[in-house]
Amino acid sequence: MLTEFSVPTRGPGLYEVTREVRRWLTGQGDGLLTLMVRHTSCSLLIQENADPEVQTDLTAFFDRLVPPSDHPSMSYLRHTYEGPDDMPAHIKSAIMPVSLSIPVRAGAPMLGTWQGIYLVEHRRAPHDRKIAAHFA
Amino acid sequence: MLTEFSVPTRGPGLYEVTREVRRWLTGQGDGLLTLMVRHTSCSLLIQENADPEVQTDLTAFFDRLVPPSDHPSMSYLRHTYEGPDDMPAHIKSAIMPVSLSIPVRAGAPMLGTWQGIYLVEHRRAPHDRKIAAHFA
Amino acid sequence: MLTEFSVPTRGPGLYEVTREVRRWLTGQGDGLLTLMVRHTSCSLLIQENADPEVQTDLTAFFDRLVPPSDHPSMSYLRHTYEGPDDMPAHIKSAIMPVSLSIPVRAGAPMLGTWQGIYLVEHRRAPHDRKIAAHFA
Repeated sequence: MLTEFSVPTRGPGLYEVTREVRRWLTGQGDGLLTLMVRHTSCSLLIQENADPEVQTDLTAFFDRLVPPSDHPSMSYLRHTYEGPDDMPAHIKSAIMPVSLSIPVRAGAPMLGTWQGIYLVEHRRAPHDRKIAAHFA
Repeated sequence: MLTEFSVPTRGPGLYEVTREVRRWLTGQGDGLLTLMVRHTSCSLLIQENADPEVQTDLTAFFDRLVPPSDHPSMSYLRHTYEGPDDMPAHIKSAIMPVSLSIPVRAGAPMLGTWQGIYLVEHRRAPHDRKIAAHFA
Repeated sequence: MLTEFSVPTRGPGLYEVTREVRRWLTGQGDGLLTLMVRHTSCSLLIQENADPEVQTDLTAFFDRLVPPSDHPSMSYLRHTYEGPDDMPAHIKSAIMPVSLSIPVRAGAPMLGTWQGIYLVEHRRAPHDRKIAAHFA
């Protein structure tokens, strides 16, 4: 079966979608869940769901690894039409996953205790993000 | 169903395969498409298909993140037998995806408007790359 | 069908699981294999299975890209409760894959000649890692 999840975002950071995904699978049996973001400037991550500092630290690391295009070290970038967070968002979306595949047992994703599913927004402006989902 | 796509490459960069993939799925119904490169020195990406500068910028970023092994900062690398682009290609293939999973509706991959599917070549010499594909 | 593989680890590095995975698929037909680590401080990689220096070089690169949190360049990290390898492990698990999808023909994963499947441990202490696996 197929569906699409909507995730409204308000700037960079992780947005958890684990609950919506679990709800969609309720009552299903064994199988495979696949998620894919339909954009090239955000990502999907499975990450720790306990300490919110993990999310702050992750965002801080990737902002240092891929600074905005108005940072001196990024002066070689050409695709900057939508602002200094435009091309870095594409780069981050090449580093972090665009799709995730998660085995499902008795209608429950086989996530570990500390794993949550997140959409990672790389753009500063608000966006309405779409995640295509498949289960079979 | 299974198939294998061939992608001849002529040096580093992105090679679009969206058309071949769409053609293979024509006439199918809902399902899941999976692609996997059968190599450890190239990658698969879903990236922007509109402005070719995105591709140039992506390649430029990853060349700075993972310079050739004859660059002073990479002098610790040992696996350099096939030239200065050998080990950096393996590293890039650990950062960018080796496999992609894409939900399919009525025989059409559920890609966003600006998403294309690309093989990313990391080696300088021409190669004949193979992508294993599965749909069900 | 579903299963779970256990991988005991003794510090950072790559642990090959190709043989266990192949054995599980023996006698199956065509299909799709999916693997997912049930943790947020280790990863899965498909990498070269010939020269062990590739593995050493990979680990060396990622240790330089994401140094321990007691390194001066990482002083901004806050999630350091389990030691200097804690948050860097989460970051590495956001860069390298958490899940892999591999087309299977006649019970054999369609890996290239030089491809092996590895769990990548990012933590220093010994761990008992679990990989959820699905085939259909």
